[in-house]
Amino acid sequence: MAGQFKITRKVEFSETDAAGLVHYSNFFRYMEACEHAFFRSLGTSIVDKSSGIGWPRVHASCDYRKPLYFEDELVIALRVTKKTSKSLSYEFIFTKGDIEAARGKLTVCCIRRNEAGEMKSTDIPAAIAEKIDIEN
Amino acid sequence: MAGQFKITRKVEFSETDAAGLVHYSNFFRYMEACEHAFFRSLGTSIVDKSSGIGWPRVHASCDYRKPLYFEDELVIALRVTKKTSKSLSYEFIFTKGDIEAARGKLTVCCIRRNEAGEMKSTDIPAAIAEKIDIEN
Amino acid sequence: MAGQFKITRKVEFSETDAAGLVHYSNFFRYMEACEHAFFRSLGTSIVDKSSGIGWPRVHASCDYRKPLYFEDELVIALRVTKKTSKSLSYEFIFTKGDIEAARGKLTVCCIRRNEAGEMKSTDIPAAIAEKIDIEN
Amino acid sequence: MAGQFKITRKVEFSETDAAGLVHYSNFFRYMEACEHAFFRSLGTSIVDKSSGIGWPRVHASCDYRKPLYFEDELVIALRVTKKTSKSLSYEFIFTKGDIEAARGKLTVCCIRRNEAGEMKSTDIPAAIAEKIDIEN
Repeated sequence: MAGQFKITRKVEFSETDAAGLVHYSNFFRYMEACEHAFFRSLGTSIVDKSSGIGWPRVHASCDYRKPLYFEDELVIALRVTKKTSKSLSYEFIFTKGDIEAARGKLTVCCIRRNEAGEMKSTDIPAAIAEKIDIEN
Repeated sequence: MAGQFKITRKVEFSETDAAGLVHYSNFFRYMEACEHAFFRSLGTSIVDKSSGIGWPRVHASCDYRKPLYFEDELVIALRVTKKTSKSLSYEFIFTKGDIEAARGKLTVCCIRRNEAGEMKSTDIPAAIAEKIDIEN
Repeated sequence: MAGQFKITRKVEFSETDAAGLVHYSNFFRYMEACEHAFFRSLGTSIVDKSSGIGWPRVHASCDYRKPLYFEDELVIALRVTKKTSKSLSYEFIFTKGDIEAARGKLTVCCIRRNEAGEMKSTDIPAAIAEKIDIEN
Repeated sequence: MAGQFKITRKVEFSETDAAGLVHYSNFFRYMEACEHAFFRSLGTSIVDKSSGIGWPRVHASCDYRKPLYFEDELVIALRVTKKTSKSLSYEFIFTKGDIEAARGKLTVCCIRRNEAGEMKSTDIPAAIAEKIDIEN
């Protein structure tokens, strides 16, 4: 079981904006990339067509402390802060060397589409739930 | 003086993801586009090289309620919820017809770069501050 | 029948990069947005789930002449340069006032997925093909 | 001296679109990421504030052969196809295992901004030019 995970990532030019910084929306792409790598580290994938489930985001937030620039190397540390039968919550800390650049949160919900195509929340499959632990 | 503003926008294909929905990070791009149109409606621009100021984002969040799909037409309604001498806070409500799809928040800080190139918070120029009102 | 179409568009901040310009990849997003508006102008949509067809891009190119900046207002003019039974080719001219900023090309192919899920080229449905004309 | 270079990259969810594939514009972001890693492999960076030069893209194209999906691992191989005193041209081949997914081209021009802020083409600095070779 695991409740934390880490990736490193180098800022790409297409992620910057005319202020010279990483565009603030990209921190949310970074968080998701870290979450998906976390799922892979558990031997699974966030996209599993055989299971028919999906993981839409229901809440996302980020506090920005220090700017990130092109070619900065950052560490993104994920921590599972909450696990219910149908949802997961994460905290992400973005650091560049010793500097904390940002801190984000994400809550995702496990869903299945009904016959009308609507997304309905559903239990996290046991095979996934049993691999994920809350980290205090 | 103004404290609220509205834009409409049609979802583009490049904003969707393999789940068929607007990727959650794009709501933050939408919020910013609405904020920038709000500044233009006040007769100014968020980027004003003569003033030397900038507006980095210090906090952003979004609660997602209903998915948005390709070619959905949405209304994004901005409301200024807080104004300090150096920052502005907004709330954004995303609707598609009668349906509230999402609700977001953004806090931006007025900064100036010092000689070392570091961003330091600074007073919002009077010419801008006097045009913006809090909307309760 | 129509073989040309035009949209206007204002450059958004998230489309710029640290060089201060519109990132070159975004011209391809602009071309596609113009193509999709062209389809809507014909009373249809590039995404039509009932038909089961799709329109993957098989060739794309762009020549960049003048940079585009935040809040520039541009006109994107589409022209259908070729129509075969299974594909469409377009040319796009990007102008900012009197200035030609860029010129792009796109070839898209009409496909249907077979039972194995592979994309196979297929005839453009008559209801669409009869609305589209080549413009010389 | 070097005239070829290779990176691997895993497709991220935010790079896909509602057709389930990598959005075609992202191949241009991938090419650029590969070019920038190539510059780093030469001990330099495409962004070098001390030199005052920049590298706008003047031509870009891509031929798409096979779709790429979420979590596909791809190899992007860069080859320098032309070097003039002021420009570089590259070819990129995208492969997924044995499959060639796409092939792209990019021409970039070395520029310097004049006092009016306009971009003017300029000689590639010797320290960079001497490290880059054409690969036939």
